Amino acid sequence: MTSTQSRRLHNFSAGPGTLPLSVLEAAREELPVFGKTGASVMEISHRSPEYIAIETSARARIRSLLGLTEDWHILFLGGGASMQFHQVPLNFLPSDGQAGYLLTGVWAKKAHAEACKIGHGRIVASSAESTFNYIPDPESWVLDRRDSYLHYTSNNTIYGTQFHSPLNVNCPLVCDASSDFLSRPIELDRYGLIYAGAQKNIGPAGVTVVLVRDRFMKTRNASLPTMLDYGTHAAKCFNTPPVHAVYMVEKVLRWLEEQGGIPGIQAVNQKKARLLYDAIDSSEFYRGTAQKASRSLMNVTFRLTNEELEPVFIQRAAEHGLLALKGHRSVGGMRASIYNACPLDSVNVLIEFMRDFEKKNG
Amino acid sequence: MTSTQSRRLHNFSAGPGTLPLSVLEAAREELPVFGKTGASVMEISHRSPEYIAIETSARARIRSLLGLTEDWHILFLGGGASMQFHQVPLNFLPSDGQAGYLLTGVWAKKAHAEACKIGHGRIVASSAESTFNYIPDPESWVLDRRDSYLHYTSNNTIYGTQFHSPLNVNCPLVCDASSDFLSRPIELDRYGLIYAGAQKNIGPAGVTVVLVRDRFMKTRNASLPTMLDYGTHAAKCFNTPPVHAVYMVEKVLRWLEEQGGIPGIQAVNQKKARLLYDAIDSSEFYRGTAQKASRSLMNVTFRLTNEELEPVFIQRAAEHGLLALKGHRSVGGMRASIYNACPLDSVNVLIEFMRDFEKKNG
Repeated sequence: MTSTQSRRLHNFSAGPGTLPLSVLEAAREELPVFGKTGASVMEISHRSPEYIAIETSARARIRSLLGLTEDWHILFLGGGASMQFHQVPLNFLPSDGQAGYLLTGVWAKKAHAEACKIGHGRIVASSAESTFNYIPDPESWVLDRRDSYLHYTSNNTIYGTQFHSPLNVNCPLVCDASSDFLSRPIELDRYGLIYAGAQKNIGPAGVTVVLVRDRFMKTRNASLPTMLDYGTHAAKCFNTPPVHAVYMVEKVLRWLEEQGGIPGIQAVNQKKARLLYDAIDSSEFYRGTAQKASRSLMNVTFRLTNEELEPVFIQRAAEHGLLALKGHRSVGGMRASIYNACPLDSVNVLIEFMRDFEKKNG
Repeated sequence: MTSTQSRRLHNFSAGPGTLPLSVLEAAREELPVFGKTGASVMEISHRSPEYIAIETSARARIRSLLGLTEDWHILFLGGGASMQFHQVPLNFLPSDGQAGYLLTGVWAKKAHAEACKIGHGRIVASSAESTFNYIPDPESWVLDRRDSYLHYTSNNTIYGTQFHSPLNVNCPLVCDASSDFLSRPIELDRYGLIYAGAQKNIGPAGVTVVLVRDRFMKTRNASLPTMLDYGTHAAKCFNTPPVHAVYMVEKVLRWLEEQGGIPGIQAVNQKKARLLYDAIDSSEFYRGTAQKASRSLMNVTFRLTNEELEPVFIQRAAEHGLLALKGHRSVGGMRASIYNACPLDSVNVLIEFMRDFEKKNG
């Protein structure tokens, strides 16, 4: 371990999240000169063969990892996933139409609010009454086949909940997969569009990956602003993309393949989450905040039985090199974000720390 | 000169453009660990003190460099300058209102087309009939005080033209300053909003700097989509910004201060452009494509009298380590983009090459 590496700590940030060390080291090696370009990757034209090769590679890897057929467009857009909250209804919700929204947290609520500015954003189900600590039972969903689409957030970072079963609905699915994208397989058949801000599982902040199925694309509204029309970006490279962010995503995708692709990383993700939830459940000192059936494999939210000790826990953890464990202010307590790139080792160190902390303070 | 540096070539890319070597080296030093964070800058929360310090510093430096008073908001947005073509009229052009557009090139035309989707985008003047090779004389402008704003593109990368006099108009100015931002002072009094994609003069692709004056901000339309409402971003950090791009911009701003700020870089820019235009004008072998009074200090467009030799010129230049000199397809010939970070040395090497090429082929 070099002195540089040794200064890297165990990072449980909810986003922007940790990246594979090998990816960062490769990026370092390519500064200030990328390949044979005579410049860094940030200084070459987005229409140069070298950048086009990066984007083509990233697209091919996503296609292969998820098993996307050719009728799926793969777009790299700026603006963040929050822009998609507007862009999705702008494209697919007619002003006199309706779309369904599953309210499972703050992000889902924000997406719903933007839809309501354009047409009828219909609430299909909500767990708001219980601080979003569970995914509503499909039995309770009020489905309507007149919906242009049904929008949901596959993983809820703040509350530590995640959808675990395929959604059985009667209209195209639109999914905000920002916080669990490429962490597990997706049953693509039911989907019209999937979007994900890169900064949790697949890269740095600054690019949002949007997957759109061609036959869903064809249902979009007319007379859209050029930059917000998915068709613009599916047709060609319309404007300068966030070059460096796409470059980093491409490296993360290569790394993901080295982990055995989606099945490989899914197995690691399951193991990390199981170890951590087991540590929480096997102690009276800790308790998980999400209902067990809805627990997220990406964001593990928990509290101390003695809540007054929580600031001490977070402080001691930081001194121990365990970063960003403070829970979101709306839930309190702790949150360990264990996205794809969070090493198993970091989870083991956290569990060891938790046992030690309990011994000293239990 | 290290072996790494020696592989860097003379980069005349029109955008993403060259960055200061010292900035790239500083970024390299901060991989994979940024300061005392235990992670790279791409892996820390955008709400962490460390990232907030970067953004605060970038904002303060822009404020100081341009002399922006406190009534100016400074925003860092994703989506690229092309998104501003839509966002500006969405915010400031009422559907039954009008705004003026100066058509001086492809980017101005695109901005105008987006405005026409929202209200009446009035053409104030155009140089389209002459392949945009000049800035229309203010005497010919058809001004109208009912315009919500007058939009113009201060520098036109493709055609190598630039506005050189303050615009004397009777409504707030909105300026796309993407390709000459922070290359010279701006007479702020007349402006309501100024925007600039970072990837020419101030950083990598992935962030657009938007300056909005508060009293202009107050004139915006009601019921805007949250992410496209300038007020959202002026009020608070609403969503994850393009962290790495802002981080790079902050470093470029520090570098700019080391060059003597705007007066310092302006003097260098004037010198680089003068040397290059003098080399063009002093020879029968080369000719500039823009009318002299409209010539850009950022993008020097020129042709060979014998146009058939142009591919040879570009090829030989590349072999000589002079990159990205091919002109835009709509103009042809050559274009040397000599933004802030293009060293005087690169311009001198180019001029030397041009003389040598003329000697061998003239």
